[in-house]
Amino acid sequence: MDEILLMLPGPTTVHPRVLNAMSQAVVNHRGAKYGEILTETSELMSDVFQTSNQSYLLTGSGTAAMEAAISNVVNSGEKILNVVGGKFGERFMKIANAHGITTEELAVEWGTAVTPEAIKAALDADEDIKAVSVVHNETSTGVAAPIEAIGKVMKDYDALYIVDTVSSLGGDYVDVDKFGIDVCITGSQKCIAAPPGMAAITLSDDAWAAADKVDSHTFYLDMQAAKKSGDKNPPQTPYTPSVSLTYAMNEALKMVMEEGLENRVARHHKAAKASVAASKALGLELFADEKVSSATVTAVKMPEGVTDAEFRGTTRDKYGVELAGGQDHLKGNIFRIGHMGNISYKELVQTFAAIGMTLKGLGAIEDAGAGVASITESYL
Amino acid sequence: MDEILLMLPGPTTVHPRVLNAMSQAVVNHRGAKYGEILTETSELMSDVFQTSNQSYLLTGSGTAAMEAAISNVVNSGEKILNVVGGKFGERFMKIANAHGITTEELAVEWGTAVTPEAIKAALDADEDIKAVSVVHNETSTGVAAPIEAIGKVMKDYDALYIVDTVSSLGGDYVDVDKFGIDVCITGSQKCIAAPPGMAAITLSDDAWAAADKVDSHTFYLDMQAAKKSGDKNPPQTPYTPSVSLTYAMNEALKMVMEEGLENRVARHHKAAKASVAASKALGLELFADEKVSSATVTAVKMPEGVTDAEFRGTTRDKYGVELAGGQDHLKGNIFRIGHMGNISYKELVQTFAAIGMTLKGLGAIEDAGAGVASITESYL
Repeated sequence: MDEILLMLPGPTTVHPRVLNAMSQAVVNHRGAKYGEILTETSELMSDVFQTSNQSYLLTGSGTAAMEAAISNVVNSGEKILNVVGGKFGERFMKIANAHGITTEELAVEWGTAVTPEAIKAALDADEDIKAVSVVHNETSTGVAAPIEAIGKVMKDYDALYIVDTVSSLGGDYVDVDKFGIDVCITGSQKCIAAPPGMAAITLSDDAWAAADKVDSHTFYLDMQAAKKSGDKNPPQTPYTPSVSLTYAMNEALKMVMEEGLENRVARHHKAAKASVAASKALGLELFADEKVSSATVTAVKMPEGVTDAEFRGTTRDKYGVELAGGQDHLKGNIFRIGHMGNISYKELVQTFAAIGMTLKGLGAIEDAGAGVASITESYL
Repeated sequence: MDEILLMLPGPTTVHPRVLNAMSQAVVNHRGAKYGEILTETSELMSDVFQTSNQSYLLTGSGTAAMEAAISNVVNSGEKILNVVGGKFGERFMKIANAHGITTEELAVEWGTAVTPEAIKAALDADEDIKAVSVVHNETSTGVAAPIEAIGKVMKDYDALYIVDTVSSLGGDYVDVDKFGIDVCITGSQKCIAAPPGMAAITLSDDAWAAADKVDSHTFYLDMQAAKKSGDKNPPQTPYTPSVSLTYAMNEALKMVMEEGLENRVARHHKAAKASVAASKALGLELFADEKVSSATVTAVKMPEGVTDAEFRGTTRDKYGVELAGGQDHLKGNIFRIGHMGNISYKELVQTFAAIGMTLKGLGAIEDAGAGVASITESYL
């Protein structure tokens, strides 16, 4: 068994079509041919974001896009409300701090989702809040935030609405314009299923207006520079982009649109429901509140007496399925099943067979087959 | 003629071995397998930098590495001496400004190189200078700075020595430890001949000591975070890396070491000498002072009466050779021949044939063959 099945909250298994596209010869990034590919890829990106605004590719990881999202629209000394219910919510706050932005934490118990009411209350309590950051899909806990409902609340306030859809775009319902999102970011290696190393960002008119007033502390991630270069003929990036990953993103986004966004989101929701049901069928306890459980990752409590090393080591080395562990204080306490990208019943059957056999082998459960049986029921 | 020969100062034509390595299946960037590849690639990187210090890969372009180089070791409010003799020297200064660092410009006429004496004088005149930034190979002008001689001067001062070898490492003589360089950076797509999208950095003990005292304004490019993750078991990057480009860098660096650094540098110098001689044989005038002419790019004055669009458009569209134009105020006044990466007489013969035929076709020269004839003489 050479190929390991990646069931991680990113990176996900990359389709051969995308790998092949990536290995095309590198072209001049200042030339017409790259300009065409960049334009097409940016347009596809806007289609997936569901926005009429321009999208920009960034050569960097999702964290680079998170830093771009905050540092370009909030000045140092200004205040941001950071919703923190997991590692990535925390990261937004750390990034804001690194830029001298005053941060106000809206703490949410890990495993639960922020409510629109809590955000409304925070905004009512402090009119200096310039922006609100929300992580749509908190992969560290397996929770999806209600970004559409939050968007409705945000419409009554001037604060910018910054949403991280790194691990949800293309797998859960995201409609940037309809939800009133001002700054939206995503990554290449999650539901879009391209290799890691590229990110994307889109800004509303309000966000661009804010950006005009910000003395950004980043140079590499300066969105004004990106805009200026994007407006050139041929369109360019301000600094040398990853040409190969642009090819990969282009192909992966075409595959998203060929499937159809709605179908793709429905497929991810189906996989999430099946994964939750199969976990429960194995007698496992979910970490995330089931009402707000993520469409792209399932967080499961580690059964008593089972260590992370023996559990994930066995699923990987014996059964060829790579799962994610818990992060920070959740290390050893949970494991996470990513069901992002090109995921169907096949991958879930393999995954829950591996989980079932591993846990039975470790003496933690009695019925190794309940998970896979549940997957077949879910997909019938 | 489908494939365009890239004779640019980056990106360069990527060898099929590297493209194939890049298209391998993506692995978990937190797992043991990636840890091994990362370790090996970082060690190869240190071999090429010729340093006993650890090297770090950055998912981003050379500009990201430039920002990392400055923002991690110089605090805002502190002073840096920026040698500016071209676009990339300027960029270092802009980056420093973006971080609130006080910049002192050591202006050098474009097309000439800074002297060690000028740096010594600037350091003697101002003891507050915390660091000096030098671009080894200024691709905008085709000039190589005497970084070894500057290193000798720098040894008498406490100021950190920051050197951009983005477009020289692997093509010109760079010995980080011997030259006393404190922060050295490079890019994937120049003389290392991998696709663009990755950069590398290495820091001396003095640079790390300075980094301890800096409240870095960048989050994504925080080298302390990179160090902490690199020390983990398995070794990691702080944020998701470009796994595919790590494969590509790994293979490209292996090719560098298979050739041997000394051979590779000699090959680049031979190509540079041949390119300069062939340009002169065609009656063209060099832009850069020939005594400090770059080993990896030749900057040539555009012949009178010839426009950039017709010249480079013809070499590209009619003869399949892509050359670079001038940047900023040199736009239209010069063209640049990159001879980086996998370059031998073959590519130079094709290039000078294309230049000769294009210029004769435009009525600018009489002897189309003098350039290629000169290349054969140079390589005999």
